[in-house]
Amino acid sequence: MSLPAEFALIARHFAPLAHPGGLGLLDDAALLTPPAGRELVLAADAMVAGVHFLPNDPPETVGRKLLRVNLSDLAAMGAEPIGYLMTIALPREIGEDWLDPFARGLAEDQRGFGLALFGGDTVSTSGPLVLSLTILGSVEPGRALRRAGARPGDAVWVTGTIGDGWLGLRAARGELPDPEARIAARYRLPTPRLAEGRALIGIAHACMDVSDGLVQDLGHICRASGCGAVIEAARIPLSPWAAGADIRDLIAGGDDYELLFAAPPEAPVAELGATRIGRFIAGPPEVTVLDAKGAVLPLSRHGWSHR
Amino acid sequence: MSLPAEFALIARHFAPLAHPGGLGLLDDAALLTPPAGRELVLAADAMVAGVHFLPNDPPETVGRKLLRVNLSDLAAMGAEPIGYLMTIALPREIGEDWLDPFARGLAEDQRGFGLALFGGDTVSTSGPLVLSLTILGSVEPGRALRRAGARPGDAVWVTGTIGDGWLGLRAARGELPDPEARIAARYRLPTPRLAEGRALIGIAHACMDVSDGLVQDLGHICRASGCGAVIEAARIPLSPWAAGADIRDLIAGGDDYELLFAAPPEAPVAELGATRIGRFIAGPPEVTVLDAKGAVLPLSRHGWSHR
Repeated sequence: MSLPAEFALIARHFAPLAHPGGLGLLDDAALLTPPAGRELVLAADAMVAGVHFLPNDPPETVGRKLLRVNLSDLAAMGAEPIGYLMTIALPREIGEDWLDPFARGLAEDQRGFGLALFGGDTVSTSGPLVLSLTILGSVEPGRALRRAGARPGDAVWVTGTIGDGWLGLRAARGELPDPEARIAARYRLPTPRLAEGRALIGIAHACMDVSDGLVQDLGHICRASGCGAVIEAARIPLSPWAAGADIRDLIAGGDDYELLFAAPPEAPVAELGATRIGRFIAGPPEVTVLDAKGAVLPLSRHGWSHR
Repeated sequence: MSLPAEFALIARHFAPLAHPGGLGLLDDAALLTPPAGRELVLAADAMVAGVHFLPNDPPETVGRKLLRVNLSDLAAMGAEPIGYLMTIALPREIGEDWLDPFARGLAEDQRGFGLALFGGDTVSTSGPLVLSLTILGSVEPGRALRRAGARPGDAVWVTGTIGDGWLGLRAARGELPDPEARIAARYRLPTPRLAEGRALIGIAHACMDVSDGLVQDLGHICRASGCGAVIEAARIPLSPWAAGADIRDLIAGGDDYELLFAAPPEAPVAELGATRIGRFIAGPPEVTVLDAKGAVLPLSRHGWSHR
């Protein structure tokens, strides 16, 4: 009895990625013995070709980007990865030549980040490619980092550099010179700050990852925490590729996947590559950005909506 | 600071569906204390408008169907539901008037089946609506029903009636008279056999749900178990709407979501609404269907591929 193409496709590309609990992707569901004495952490994100990645992005990077975006959600909670489930709505024109490097990319990141595939579904669509991924991680019970908890007097901290996701998108579109595709790589393959997130447990009072733009995301911490924030544009860490860019674009651009957190000004977070960019203040949940002269920088937009 | 439409949409339609561990859908991820002494069961399925449901299906039923399809995967393992995560790729033309009944339908099934939303993502697409759902359940460790385990001499059993998914699709398309939309309801709102699945733990040697057609799915049990199966067409339980239909269409049609399982011929499963339709035999993993005279019924197709 011959089986439909769906089964061959799963057996060839995805079964090799399966966690032992994924049962070879051959059963109705997967089994997972939850890690003893830990709380589970769950997140889901979706990406659409032409919205969250470029249709001509290398297939090696497309699955990895979605995996890393989800890993960044675990990082923001201070969690460790366990595994993931993924569904793929495939346009008919996508075949083996695309799926093969796509799955190879996932395999590489599974090794790098220590997780594996529990299951999923492959369906066809007349529209663009849609990928959806649910990630599972774990954290010490009651110790997950949350968006609520920032207090007036806390410093605003951020890991890495800000604006590289937006600069990388421009480079990937050919709008910025990037001969070695190094800044485009920041857009296509962001680095989830998993070690940093774990290290921040017990130090950060509030934390999230910067996915929709620094200012908009800081607003989320402010709303959840019931306070305001003031940041200084001149303190925001930038990469060399940001030279000549407007700071307002860099702080409204999405896809940075750095950790943004509240911690005391003297917190020992320099070794995590974190920079102090401002402070939380008493007051309404608003974010103010000051320019180099201490004047309020007017912003026309605060971030990015993926909707 | 005004937030993009995505946040208002989540707050309005989906936050009311959230599990307490979903943290109001306001954090980077959800938290779940796994049920003590249980194994987790995980499955994911996706649906695309025009492939898995009709674009004009009532929005009340669309989310519930995907939830029920996933619940059916839990049922097939004998698991109990805990919660789910869902991502939605929305065409721009879908607005509040569609999302409102969509979310109301989900709320109704959450109450009926005892589970809630842990998280998700809402994105836009230029193509058809794509829904993806990951479900979490739990089962007594080591006792999940699996596809492997059928033995020669076991009977082939199935709950409910077969072919109603296919008949319901025809009715929903207006190809069958169905004035009260009762058979169309079998297509739009299948009933996951959760209680039956739990009751089969310790009784069934192998189990799965019929999603792609009886014959094709029985082939999966045969391959996983390393045996063959013979079923008798005349024993296959049918609903009144099947009158006049070709049995070959009914046993190749998908979307039944009944449980198909291997258990001894004398197993006490009649009270579960199960019917004995054949037997597992030693030999290659092939499924033979016999007609009323005991002759082999030739089949042109065995099931349905959603790819």
